[in-house]
Amino acid sequence: MSIITLTSDWNNCDFYVGAVKGLILRNCPDITMVDISHSITTFNVGQAAFVLRNAYPNFPKDTIHIILVNTESSPVRPFLLVRADNHYFIGTDNGIFSLILGDKHEKIVQLKVDEQKNSTAIELFSSVACKLANGAKMDELGKVVDSYIQRIPLRPTIENLTLTGSVIYIDSFQNAITNITKDLFERIRQNRNFEIFIQSKHYKVTRISNFYHEVPVGELLVLFNSVGLLEVAINNGNAARLLNLDVNSAIRVEFENN
Amino acid sequence: MSIITLTSDWNNCDFYVGAVKGLILRNCPDITMVDISHSITTFNVGQAAFVLRNAYPNFPKDTIHIILVNTESSPVRPFLLVRADNHYFIGTDNGIFSLILGDKHEKIVQLKVDEQKNSTAIELFSSVACKLANGAKMDELGKVVDSYIQRIPLRPTIENLTLTGSVIYIDSFQNAITNITKDLFERIRQNRNFEIFIQSKHYKVTRISNFYHEVPVGELLVLFNSVGLLEVAINNGNAARLLNLDVNSAIRVEFENN
Amino acid sequence: MSIITLTSDWNNCDFYVGAVKGLILRNCPDITMVDISHSITTFNVGQAAFVLRNAYPNFPKDTIHIILVNTESSPVRPFLLVRADNHYFIGTDNGIFSLILGDKHEKIVQLKVDEQKNSTAIELFSSVACKLANGAKMDELGKVVDSYIQRIPLRPTIENLTLTGSVIYIDSFQNAITNITKDLFERIRQNRNFEIFIQSKHYKVTRISNFYHEVPVGELLVLFNSVGLLEVAINNGNAARLLNLDVNSAIRVEFENN
Repeated sequence: MSIITLTSDWNNCDFYVGAVKGLILRNCPDITMVDISHSITTFNVGQAAFVLRNAYPNFPKDTIHIILVNTESSPVRPFLLVRADNHYFIGTDNGIFSLILGDKHEKIVQLKVDEQKNSTAIELFSSVACKLANGAKMDELGKVVDSYIQRIPLRPTIENLTLTGSVIYIDSFQNAITNITKDLFERIRQNRNFEIFIQSKHYKVTRISNFYHEVPVGELLVLFNSVGLLEVAINNGNAARLLNLDVNSAIRVEFENN
Repeated sequence: MSIITLTSDWNNCDFYVGAVKGLILRNCPDITMVDISHSITTFNVGQAAFVLRNAYPNFPKDTIHIILVNTESSPVRPFLLVRADNHYFIGTDNGIFSLILGDKHEKIVQLKVDEQKNSTAIELFSSVACKLANGAKMDELGKVVDSYIQRIPLRPTIENLTLTGSVIYIDSFQNAITNITKDLFERIRQNRNFEIFIQSKHYKVTRISNFYHEVPVGELLVLFNSVGLLEVAINNGNAARLLNLDVNSAIRVEFENN
Repeated sequence: MSIITLTSDWNNCDFYVGAVKGLILRNCPDITMVDISHSITTFNVGQAAFVLRNAYPNFPKDTIHIILVNTESSPVRPFLLVRADNHYFIGTDNGIFSLILGDKHEKIVQLKVDEQKNSTAIELFSSVACKLANGAKMDELGKVVDSYIQRIPLRPTIENLTLTGSVIYIDSFQNAITNITKDLFERIRQNRNFEIFIQSKHYKVTRISNFYHEVPVGELLVLFNSVGLLEVAINNGNAARLLNLDVNSAIRVEFENN
């Protein structure tokens, strides 16, 4: 039994959610359909990519992920079906594929659109997902192309003794998740001491915690989260709001000179 | 395998959502259960009707739609099961059936209520839905009646050269969807030029777009949406908020005299 | 086919929702997975307990309920699997089990944690739930323990002729649900008259309604809700907001001296 996941910025209230679910169940009644999120901020391709990038690897291989964020297509932004990392992704070529998958794509197909019907993303994506679920080959669903639009995610910079990253996601606990991976941090750290500065020099942390509760309730901490990203948090909540952090806020790590 | 859909104004946080899902799975474990929306505005029968009217036709025939908005019943507002357009609808006779279905009903049954048990809409609707899913006939579930309460949806008016409609729904992108259908518009238009006025004479549009991106980001446009309704939008969002449009705001189309 | 329910404070937007669903489908693809709520207020163990306490009894026996609210564990707050009332509950020993189940537990197992892997609640809970669904015995999943942390829910007090309860939940209609059960009320009432005071002496009600519509729209009423708890409501909504009621607000019932 195949799995189809749904991610959208429809805020759970529009009829589009019901419409896409109805079309899927009509075309492939035996599917397992899973809501990943319908609460992506409107048109926020970066947020949708972050959610899907961290959620999809947990699903079984061959899961089909439908992405309904900023879907309007045009000749330079066609509808795509992408095979990568043993999963399928269906969406509009608005840069989201590169933000989710980097260069991991194995095959990209530009979906056939029926010009007569002026069919919507909802109709096309649910139809393509069900064809895949029913055994269609990618080549039958459109024209193989080489690449999708590249959007370069903000990467940390390294200069002398300083590693500067930025906040890429605020979660529902107001934890501020950065683009500094544990791997990168440790590679540069080389067992040296360090100071982490948040909001220029306003807040400073000099150790990495393993658990939120290692500091008293209401105290600031920094840890690596479940997907290995440096996260600025407050035990029992609200770091981003209290520290006035937002997506793109800079986080600076200064390593000791040894 | 039957399908049961759920639409409510419970905002995803109350225990009622879990309760109705539990009762359904207890009574008919093999059902496919689908959330259409639990984010209908409190008691907003019109909004629920709009969502369901546009979502239900996408589902396979014989789908059972449970409507849990403004459910309290009374002798003049009984619980009903309606068969229409090859679907089943279960709800309270608060006018919502006419807003979803107009006069399309094939059969209406007033549901039997166990006076002793004072059973809630949640219990009754989930029990009736599962009986249907398990093969019960409508006649076994209550008394056949002739009609449901009619609530007349606001319709566009036509006077000389002017077609006046109104906003009936604001979607999550702040697009303002009106009650002017493409059919009606084209029938009156007869290939003439026209001017569309929004907020009396404040904003004017003189063409219908096919895509949002046909105008620059931030510009006003008008198009017919995926269900054939005239929609006032801004490319990349927020028309209703920026133009101060709300449900019932008037939209006026003036056709050229030829 | 087993059922797994999910309750979290992730607000439907974080990738954690997708992650846990993916892991469950990977480990037990034939499961029926049900969202009870992902809109619990952040860290609000009391609210999560209220929702689950009133939702779980509607599910078939042997349903597995995963609770993802305030999940961080520590040596004094281990991860637990609890069997009670013919259901399974998986969560962190933060007091929530006592708030849902009181003393009803039949068996409690402290879950085995792989120290090497520093696995998250999401990984562990989904893995344990799937093992249960696939037939594992509780003893295989950890060490049997005697008890969980007791959190004493606020109970009504009785003094002479006065029964004082408090609001324990505000639902999405702004109904204020109290901890006064119908059983307790009737036991003390003994057919006497009574006055119910809300916000000290500001608002008074002297009868219990059966339906919201028994009073005019906008009028205050008190009734016993579908789970037998005294509820302060306004016909067509908004009691808590208009009367400024919040969780813990006192509701006082004074019985007549006879």
